[in-house]
Amino acid sequence: MDIQKTMLQSIEEELKRQVARLDQPSTSQFYEMLTYHMGWTGEGAGPEAAGKRIRPLLVLLTTAACDINENPNNSKALDSNWLRAISGAAAVELIHNFSLVHDDIQDNSDKRRGRNTVWVKWGAPMAINAGDALFVIANQAITDLTEHYPADIVVKAAKILNDTCLDLTRGQFLDMSYEERNDLNIEDYWPMIGGKTSALLSACTHIGAILGNASKPEEDAYRLFGYHLGLAFQVQDDILGIWGDESVTGKSAASDLLEGKNSLPILYGLGKNGKFAERWKQGPITVSEVNEVAAHLEAEGARSYASKSSENETQKALEYLKKANPKGVAGEKMLELANRLLKRNQ
Amino acid sequence: MDIQKTMLQSIEEELKRQVARLDQPSTSQFYEMLTYHMGWTGEGAGPEAAGKRIRPLLVLLTTAACDINENPNNSKALDSNWLRAISGAAAVELIHNFSLVHDDIQDNSDKRRGRNTVWVKWGAPMAINAGDALFVIANQAITDLTEHYPADIVVKAAKILNDTCLDLTRGQFLDMSYEERNDLNIEDYWPMIGGKTSALLSACTHIGAILGNASKPEEDAYRLFGYHLGLAFQVQDDILGIWGDESVTGKSAASDLLEGKNSLPILYGLGKNGKFAERWKQGPITVSEVNEVAAHLEAEGARSYASKSSENETQKALEYLKKANPKGVAGEKMLELANRLLKRNQ
Repeated sequence: MDIQKTMLQSIEEELKRQVARLDQPSTSQFYEMLTYHMGWTGEGAGPEAAGKRIRPLLVLLTTAACDINENPNNSKALDSNWLRAISGAAAVELIHNFSLVHDDIQDNSDKRRGRNTVWVKWGAPMAINAGDALFVIANQAITDLTEHYPADIVVKAAKILNDTCLDLTRGQFLDMSYEERNDLNIEDYWPMIGGKTSALLSACTHIGAILGNASKPEEDAYRLFGYHLGLAFQVQDDILGIWGDESVTGKSAASDLLEGKNSLPILYGLGKNGKFAERWKQGPITVSEVNEVAAHLEAEGARSYASKSSENETQKALEYLKKANPKGVAGEKMLELANRLLKRNQ
Repeated sequence: MDIQKTMLQSIEEELKRQVARLDQPSTSQFYEMLTYHMGWTGEGAGPEAAGKRIRPLLVLLTTAACDINENPNNSKALDSNWLRAISGAAAVELIHNFSLVHDDIQDNSDKRRGRNTVWVKWGAPMAINAGDALFVIANQAITDLTEHYPADIVVKAAKILNDTCLDLTRGQFLDMSYEERNDLNIEDYWPMIGGKTSALLSACTHIGAILGNASKPEEDAYRLFGYHLGLAFQVQDDILGIWGDESVTGKSAASDLLEGKNSLPILYGLGKNGKFAERWKQGPITVSEVNEVAAHLEAEGARSYASKSSENETQKALEYLKKANPKGVAGEKMLELANRLLKRNQ
């Protein structure tokens, strides 16, 4: 079987094994909240609801693409060497999902991947606790690495994950605090998105490299590849959130304008203090004017600035990936994945 | 200076050092939420607002009371040997405070130690994030132990803390889920409170013992001492919450009846299905009837059952403490603290 498919299957099994810590008769409803959010149970369960598991896949591909060093002549060993990193891969996906559960409460979002959010189904107090539990299980998953790694490597991975989580809370704070501000500028974008998106993708490739026994220069290159991949990916997402093709993205066109999201084109436009900023400050954009507002924003240069930023970050990401020099089949898959994420139109 | 005072001072300094991870210009308001909750800043700041720091004190006293083994003839070394456990002590206090910030949102409580809660001051979305940050910093504090301990000891301490946090979320789930149930019994009390209160006190003495290089039998004895100390303490708190002397406890009499808390006497009374349960199921108790309801509950045996339970748990706690055999000045202080917690009337 294809290595990526095998990895995705192992990731799902490991996530289920980790979350099963709450599978007890007295907490069955609690367990259900987690399995529902992870996309395994309840209405609409299935791969669509689970998401793409890109983060844990990045961990495992990185580990596998480094690990060939240890077994240059043994392709069989290489094929399954990544399996010992599996609980580390699960950890980052659990962190991602913990943050989604809390984000949905904070943003008052009632849908996530087309389904009702946890707080809509069980109320905010239970959803806060469900998010906390996913966070705890992520921490348990990372220390489970002691089954296959010496304690000093495990502590190193745990420290990276912890630092990343603090970045996530910082990014989330900035995002929420922007709602009350009227002086936003493009400068305010990068620290927010560095915390909200890039920190975790950077942690994936960083932890993957450590678990793959990478050299220090390789480790740095992987870490920075993940970071810039995250920035490029997010900026693309922001472009699609305003000028994306509805039939491709599956979201209504210009949804970020309607939702008032702190995306890059919007912060750029606010900094310009032109027609767009004037309209934005008057209150929520309505569906009937959304095309006009998007056109103003494009005319003021927001779209081309965002495209250039995305291109710039993409170049940096690919340079660092080249420097990291991922090896073997996993290395090929990693390059494929990066290209898919960076040139996607959905 | 008295060892306990020295410890409390060191705890406060370490907590400040840990929380200062968020002390940056761009996140100053975020940082303020944490320093406010910890009792250091804002209106009403001071020792009253900070709380008693019993949990980190338990960690350090345990470490110090074990550590004499290593330096039987060196009282000077003993006096400061506990200092290397300081970030572990801070970790448990940060976990405790993370859970308080989220509890206050979940319970819709507007006051904590006489001051407005974080969600009242900054809104629930920000408070969820502030709680998350305290949780993250707790994890960072525990891995900071690598400054003074080998990685395998640090991982062991981290695993205990993680398991404890999962117990906390389980206990919190049970507590919240009881609000919708009409068939509660005394049997439902122990798993809830085992998670909500005892797990963390048990983690304090368990982690303290590990950081004090205790033998396996000592470690087990300290762990179980903490567990039963937690149960005894909580049951006493539950008794005071209904029959406590208002002038001593500082809370209004029978406040647990007014708040509809899932305390031990109340669950005992519900299981009896007598006059108390009948009244309870009709809806919230009002101030004018609170004395009468408390009298019914006492007549049905709830107060004497709770007193016996507390006495029983106190005996177990003291037996395990005897078995643990805490040594030196720290050992004396530990016994003093246990007696103070177990015989308190406030």
